[in-house]
Amino acid sequence: MRQFSIILTTLALVTSCAPKEKEGDRFEELFHGELKIVDLTHPLSETSPYWPDPNGYAFDYDTLIKQPSGAPGMGRYKVSEHLGTHMDAPIHFADGKSSIDDIAPNEMFGPAVVIDVSSKCAADADYVLVKQDILDWEAEHGPIPERAIVLMNSGWGNKWEDAAAYKNEDEKGQMHFPGFSAEAAELLIKERNILGIGIDNFSVDRAIATDFPVHLIVNGAGKFHLENVANLDQLPPTGAYLINAPIKIEGGSGGQVRIFAVVP
Amino acid sequence: MRQFSIILTTLALVTSCAPKEKEGDRFEELFHGELKIVDLTHPLSETSPYWPDPNGYAFDYDTLIKQPSGAPGMGRYKVSEHLGTHMDAPIHFADGKSSIDDIAPNEMFGPAVVIDVSSKCAADADYVLVKQDILDWEAEHGPIPERAIVLMNSGWGNKWEDAAAYKNEDEKGQMHFPGFSAEAAELLIKERNILGIGIDNFSVDRAIATDFPVHLIVNGAGKFHLENVANLDQLPPTGAYLINAPIKIEGGSGGQVRIFAVVP
Repeated sequence: MRQFSIILTTLALVTSCAPKEKEGDRFEELFHGELKIVDLTHPLSETSPYWPDPNGYAFDYDTLIKQPSGAPGMGRYKVSEHLGTHMDAPIHFADGKSSIDDIAPNEMFGPAVVIDVSSKCAADADYVLVKQDILDWEAEHGPIPERAIVLMNSGWGNKWEDAAAYKNEDEKGQMHFPGFSAEAAELLIKERNILGIGIDNFSVDRAIATDFPVHLIVNGAGKFHLENVANLDQLPPTGAYLINAPIKIEGGSGGQVRIFAVVP
Repeated sequence: MRQFSIILTTLALVTSCAPKEKEGDRFEELFHGELKIVDLTHPLSETSPYWPDPNGYAFDYDTLIKQPSGAPGMGRYKVSEHLGTHMDAPIHFADGKSSIDDIAPNEMFGPAVVIDVSSKCAADADYVLVKQDILDWEAEHGPIPERAIVLMNSGWGNKWEDAAAYKNEDEKGQMHFPGFSAEAAELLIKERNILGIGIDNFSVDRAIATDFPVHLIVNGAGKFHLENVANLDQLPPTGAYLINAPIKIEGGSGGQVRIFAVVP
């Protein structure tokens, strides 16, 4: 009987070991090229969509040295901190908060939550993700993890190559694309513990929002936004992990960010 | 006796479990803000050192919208792909090879090897890291791991804030800073399996090199360089892991890179 219980203990240890061994591999796998990494970053080019206002300029690229094929061997570029896939540092909408070079690296690594409201947005380009969308997501997938980055899939990512569809201007020149609601931002900031939020179009506030309420709430709380995020349809609702690596401009209000999603 | 052997087996399992559990934590720890991350990236500013040639320009920043404090709420910048902490894509010196947007994310995650030749470089600013420096490092720390990024600590990182010391020009305007030797580059490319190399000054070729032999060898093999890498003196010779996240310029010859070193 004692032998039997010892054998059971042994078996229990073997069993409890197994998942740990698997987990143990994930770190090694990540740095040995063996984990799936989804690049959530659009490439930057002179045709990349940009916000059509007086501070909006296309990405500008000069080839300084040409390779024989005509490809650049060296180039120089000019760009707004907020063009393409980028991060808004808290200082963008909250004077005195962190600039882009001041966000601690650890604050840019965290679990990804993807809330897919793309079908609602397809029906209504002015849709805002509401509190209930978050609660519905949690009912299905469990509580939003600690230190999550909450990404809204509006379906806009697939329009990136077509700047007119991406901007979706009406006859008055008013853009129409979806965003977070203020109540959703309040919930995430006050009742969950998140690192930041992100979206697959120009702005975490929808185009027709006035006074950027979501920017004020999230940047105001010292948190970042990711905008023009690519490939959200390639991520699971939960279980991916983000690495956000913005260009380190001293005192910058934001900047181009490379976003890698690790999907174990 | 049999009971004793079962107990021994149990103990062996407990023992073999322990390091696996620790390993298991590293992935979770990384994405929960619990691992040490060293930022190997210098901040970009108008005083950042740049290569003094006709294609060299200072980092240029315009504030488009000011916060009440005077801090930028929105900015636009102009920069060479090869200013500050940056990655040379293979196409920089090898026509037809990968541009910066074309390097697979998995090829930018790997173990770091840091070869400290800073005392030799302090004695001779034209020093090149030779084959024997690599063999000496391996004699002490073991073989260079598969898929490593091999970083040369020349001691130049600490001069970054002093552009004159960083450039170290003689009376004829010739810069003097150390680099890799061609024989070291050949060894790493042909006899080891590396992802790329990096250095804490302007160039993986020393300043007085002619025709950039190291660029031709490493880019020619389809591998990348990291230049102006910061904080190499904060890394162990082995045991750190690098995440390299360059700005994703379509067809670019290189670009500013955020480099995070994870030091478990």
